[in-house]
Amino acid sequence: MSNATLKKSALVVSAHSADFVWRAGGAIALHHAQGYDVHVVCLSFGERGESAKLWRKGNMTEEKVKEARRAEANAAAEILGASIEFFDMGDYPLRADKEALFRLADVYRRVQPHVVLTHSLKDPYNYDHPLATHLAQEARIIAQAEGYRPGEPIVGAPPVYCFEPHQPEQCDWKPDVLLDITSVWDKKYQAIQCMAGQEHLWEYYTRVAQQRGVQAKRNVGITSSRDIIYGEGYQSIFPRVTEDLA
Amino acid sequence: MSNATLKKSALVVSAHSADFVWRAGGAIALHHAQGYDVHVVCLSFGERGESAKLWRKGNMTEEKVKEARRAEANAAAEILGASIEFFDMGDYPLRADKEALFRLADVYRRVQPHVVLTHSLKDPYNYDHPLATHLAQEARIIAQAEGYRPGEPIVGAPPVYCFEPHQPEQCDWKPDVLLDITSVWDKKYQAIQCMAGQEHLWEYYTRVAQQRGVQAKRNVGITSSRDIIYGEGYQSIFPRVTEDLA
Amino acid sequence: MSNATLKKSALVVSAHSADFVWRAGGAIALHHAQGYDVHVVCLSFGERGESAKLWRKGNMTEEKVKEARRAEANAAAEILGASIEFFDMGDYPLRADKEALFRLADVYRRVQPHVVLTHSLKDPYNYDHPLATHLAQEARIIAQAEGYRPGEPIVGAPPVYCFEPHQPEQCDWKPDVLLDITSVWDKKYQAIQCMAGQEHLWEYYTRVAQQRGVQAKRNVGITSSRDIIYGEGYQSIFPRVTEDLA
Amino acid sequence: MSNATLKKSALVVSAHSADFVWRAGGAIALHHAQGYDVHVVCLSFGERGESAKLWRKGNMTEEKVKEARRAEANAAAEILGASIEFFDMGDYPLRADKEALFRLADVYRRVQPHVVLTHSLKDPYNYDHPLATHLAQEARIIAQAEGYRPGEPIVGAPPVYCFEPHQPEQCDWKPDVLLDITSVWDKKYQAIQCMAGQEHLWEYYTRVAQQRGVQAKRNVGITSSRDIIYGEGYQSIFPRVTEDLA
Amino acid sequence: MSNATLKKSALVVSAHSADFVWRAGGAIALHHAQGYDVHVVCLSFGERGESAKLWRKGNMTEEKVKEARRAEANAAAEILGASIEFFDMGDYPLRADKEALFRLADVYRRVQPHVVLTHSLKDPYNYDHPLATHLAQEARIIAQAEGYRPGEPIVGAPPVYCFEPHQPEQCDWKPDVLLDITSVWDKKYQAIQCMAGQEHLWEYYTRVAQQRGVQAKRNVGITSSRDIIYGEGYQSIFPRVTEDLA
Amino acid sequence: MSNATLKKSALVVSAHSADFVWRAGGAIALHHAQGYDVHVVCLSFGERGESAKLWRKGNMTEEKVKEARRAEANAAAEILGASIEFFDMGDYPLRADKEALFRLADVYRRVQPHVVLTHSLKDPYNYDHPLATHLAQEARIIAQAEGYRPGEPIVGAPPVYCFEPHQPEQCDWKPDVLLDITSVWDKKYQAIQCMAGQEHLWEYYTRVAQQRGVQAKRNVGITSSRDIIYGEGYQSIFPRVTEDLA
Repeated sequence: MSNATLKKSALVVSAHSADFVWRAGGAIALHHAQGYDVHVVCLSFGERGESAKLWRKGNMTEEKVKEARRAEANAAAEILGASIEFFDMGDYPLRADKEALFRLADVYRRVQPHVVLTHSLKDPYNYDHPLATHLAQEARIIAQAEGYRPGEPIVGAPPVYCFEPHQPEQCDWKPDVLLDITSVWDKKYQAIQCMAGQEHLWEYYTRVAQQRGVQAKRNVGITSSRDIIYGEGYQSIFPRVTEDLA
Repeated sequence: MSNATLKKSALVVSAHSADFVWRAGGAIALHHAQGYDVHVVCLSFGERGESAKLWRKGNMTEEKVKEARRAEANAAAEILGASIEFFDMGDYPLRADKEALFRLADVYRRVQPHVVLTHSLKDPYNYDHPLATHLAQEARIIAQAEGYRPGEPIVGAPPVYCFEPHQPEQCDWKPDVLLDITSVWDKKYQAIQCMAGQEHLWEYYTRVAQQRGVQAKRNVGITSSRDIIYGEGYQSIFPRVTEDLA
Repeated sequence: MSNATLKKSALVVSAHSADFVWRAGGAIALHHAQGYDVHVVCLSFGERGESAKLWRKGNMTEEKVKEARRAEANAAAEILGASIEFFDMGDYPLRADKEALFRLADVYRRVQPHVVLTHSLKDPYNYDHPLATHLAQEARIIAQAEGYRPGEPIVGAPPVYCFEPHQPEQCDWKPDVLLDITSVWDKKYQAIQCMAGQEHLWEYYTRVAQQRGVQAKRNVGITSSRDIIYGEGYQSIFPRVTEDLA
Repeated sequence: MSNATLKKSALVVSAHSADFVWRAGGAIALHHAQGYDVHVVCLSFGERGESAKLWRKGNMTEEKVKEARRAEANAAAEILGASIEFFDMGDYPLRADKEALFRLADVYRRVQPHVVLTHSLKDPYNYDHPLATHLAQEARIIAQAEGYRPGEPIVGAPPVYCFEPHQPEQCDWKPDVLLDITSVWDKKYQAIQCMAGQEHLWEYYTRVAQQRGVQAKRNVGITSSRDIIYGEGYQSIFPRVTEDLA
Repeated sequence: MSNATLKKSALVVSAHSADFVWRAGGAIALHHAQGYDVHVVCLSFGERGESAKLWRKGNMTEEKVKEARRAEANAAAEILGASIEFFDMGDYPLRADKEALFRLADVYRRVQPHVVLTHSLKDPYNYDHPLATHLAQEARIIAQAEGYRPGEPIVGAPPVYCFEPHQPEQCDWKPDVLLDITSVWDKKYQAIQCMAGQEHLWEYYTRVAQQRGVQAKRNVGITSSRDIIYGEGYQSIFPRVTEDLA
Repeated sequence: MSNATLKKSALVVSAHSADFVWRAGGAIALHHAQGYDVHVVCLSFGERGESAKLWRKGNMTEEKVKEARRAEANAAAEILGASIEFFDMGDYPLRADKEALFRLADVYRRVQPHVVLTHSLKDPYNYDHPLATHLAQEARIIAQAEGYRPGEPIVGAPPVYCFEPHQPEQCDWKPDVLLDITSVWDKKYQAIQCMAGQEHLWEYYTRVAQQRGVQAKRNVGITSSRDIIYGEGYQSIFPRVTEDLA
């Protein structure tokens, strides 16, 4: 990146207001700890599709559900050290028109991210997730174009990583990066606990982190002194450019 | 890696005696420049399958071809800054028994590589290439086992990268790493010129390097100040373990 | 399924009004014979794209074609033992807005299917087919959400099967289930004969059934006493949950 | 094709106004030389996304950029021997409604192409490209339907080829046809030089042609007397029907 | 299967002597509980590659390691309710000649399995595993041939399932069957505890079972009354022949 | 090909002595009719794995089975217009050492084929088939090498086509060429009838030919006057080099 003197930044595009916690909470806390400005965009609150516990309480409205979800997401973002905004595009189904696309492209222009995290390319259990991925990808491309809002500074070519879906093999998702999140696991688990409406997932994603931790250790080699307990898996979309292969 | 105080090392497993030059010459020179010990194993000389020009001279024997190829490879390795050894296993077809496998495992134990470079997993034009890949992979696994020559120090889990085959798409090879070799291109091209018997490939692999260079630049982003002219593509087999995604 | 005392049901989502006959007629008749309520939704009549013979008669209008197609489909559904409804969304191209999606989700809620049959995920010969598949998949997801029409009973997680496209390999379709339809073949062939406008396909789909029958027999093993003559192939989208692997 | 007495024709569907030059200029010139009528449809001018150099001049408007791009494309088409038309649908993002689809279907009906060239099925760097591919594919299907504008002559089943994207492996693009464009390379390079705004790509696509040329030669066999220097790669979507396999 | 009156049987082919426990212990115990005769073949003891803890004790020989591993495997098999035999073919590398192939084919003939469980088709971390898979597959084919030991009863076409490798996505392994092993989890965990030399894996495979349990529940649907806590994933190689899709 | 004045030739590599009939009989007869010399190599007689009916006669020996199979294959080859030879390498399992590889390479050198036909790259039902494919591929590569039997004329780069396996989708086989064999179907069906021991396959492969015929017609387009009734599908391994895309 050319702006070596600027602070580094990361952008997370989350279909629903809890996805960024389960799937990228470790990466957010870790990069925050490394000095990145991390910004989260929640395209919807997941008010219809991912708030079953709230709806079962009875006497609910979509507005009430959204408020509860917004509060949870705000609390989690604060713990992880990220700023957050909500596009409130609706879920089940999430649909994006050109305005939504440009709105997200404008976030790219403003944030100038050094790395982008979003959903997997496929998910037969959840059609909102890949829609978010494609919106994040296309907005990035538009933000790179000189001809979009000419005169504004364009964005570079930040790597895009797909975070782990709920049932990875069914989504044709295969991690090529394992992120060591051991040092920030306490933050991630705190953030997870903000998601009161989805308590059944707390242990599930704890175990995901433990499994990816063991795998990371195995991929580093047992002779390594590095102690990895918790991990997050990521699949990259673009090749990485480097000068050191080890 | 645990031995942070030790010098870093790299291992290159090449089916024939010229492959390491075309496909990984940049990586070798670059890592040598960064202080790595780079060691090349040539499983064969490519005496049958990749020495057409020599055979056409007439009055040739397999021994004469092998000597010519050995001399070329030695010269290239010296320019690139690598040590080299020859297993002389024969080519077209290359075949590996258990002894060859253990011999290569012993090289792993001796070299203790921090990174391994070898061929693609498939190649319909060249059956020796994937055989070399699988031998390199299996020898790595054996060298990791406590029960192989118990008491010897085992190896860690160095990343393995597949270098670029001659017709990448036909080999289902897809680079996920683009290595910037601009700073060492002169060394690579000098080494390439040692391959007198395959002059028709000099320009081909120069263009490969230029194309991968342009692609690397595109993947870094046009706002980057980084000037990349020459590149090499690599496909990784294992996930990368990291703490920074940008 | 929780409602073990209820009658079982199946839902078939067909892009055009004849697809359910060629592709799933055996499954419909078989499950009807097993006591299922089978319901077919035809998204369009195939009035533009799959009614060449009718158009060639001359003096045709889209309305006349639709009526002819509706009559054929009704007759076929009756023979197979299924109820049927027509969304009349238009074909070539089929397009679905949110209302169509919710309409289909409401069918899921009403039918509460134990199994869903629809098209393949890809088809380079027919863009309406995969659109139907994705609509069927997304409507199923919406019907599962507590927040969609809160208070209504949601649906479970019925398996979804892709039925066989016209040129299976070109559609990346690979059957993992072979359904023995020998016992209901006469019904299926009767239903096929309702499709007067596509007589050229009668023998084609008879042979498809014979080939899948032979393959089913081969996959059961030649020592089996089971006599399979006609089959239908299906590709499942979700993993099957079971307690017996044999 | 049934109309053996008619002149043969080809249709090229290009997302932006320069794509047909870089990616299919050789095929266009070659088929023109063989007597084909070649027609190019540019869905957009690439005014936003592929005109960086023009925008950097300053004092630009979208209209001015489009005019410059139109002029370049017209000049290139003339050199290559193709007719050309512009749909002016906008780029970054390109979006197609039903009217655009029917407009392109009408081009198919008018041109009656014996072969169709368009973009790859995927491209993570450029979302307009696969959109063009899918539009070209769906319009072809609609133009084949008797029920679309009944009474008009429908089109046959011309083969569709995907031309080479900028970073082929990242687009899951794999050529199964290598076109020998040696005899028309001078035309293609002349046409390339019309693209004044993208001079950085001239050498890139020259090298692409050289690499595909070497690969074509390798796939013909070194014993062949055929001298291939420049090539273009294509991936076919449909199987080829033939009576001779050699 | 034709021999409906005979007891059902299952065959498990395990590369090393502990694999069947981690990967298929639930399936073994479950089918044993359902009345199957389950037979396990361990091709090697994993004496070199999977006994690190034993080797680190010092004063070890390959024979001592094998005895320890045999004792563990026997104990585990007894808990799970399976018979077991050891081919002692050596590991790291496992290699199979024709005699080994025929020996395993003879086991098929003797056991006449209704279902076969073995490793995944690929595993970049362990070359012995896919070798075992291919041996199991080829032996099954030979045991089906009338011309192999003519006169002996041949085997049918039992389904073959690949059990879960250590890092599933890296092995291109995708489960299409989720087996509910909740009712036998206590047996599996007891068997796991026999593997004293690999205590670091106990919790890893407990979590694997919990994750697959949650996924199984999700795939059954939250409206189901079925309570699934532990699961095992399997990938089938052949299509399933059935008469009921639900 | 350089030897334009020479007669064209084709090489068929068949794992068992009947495969070339079911899978490539049409191509053989068609190319013979076009003036090619077609040569078939049967690696084995299929005496163990594909002669069930003979073995069930009782009083059989491997030698008797082989003689019966040889007679059938000779008769079929004569009808199709091909020369044939038998390597008698054994089946179930087929295994190839270096001598077999060189023997086949020598056939390539002698035949100098313009096209090669062999099995699919995968087949979970038959491990001999892909072994034959890989042997055919590697022998072709060796026959191309100047250093193999230096001084002999090497072979060019004939295209290699995989013919259709018994259950195509399960073998990951996807045809990209459909061969119109209508004009020689009577020859193929005559040859099929020579396979007295596998009468159950006669109709199966008749229907395969009819299905591929319909698909070929669909891929040519319904406006074509060409009347295709029978077809064979082929998957090519290498890209095709051409000057005409239509």
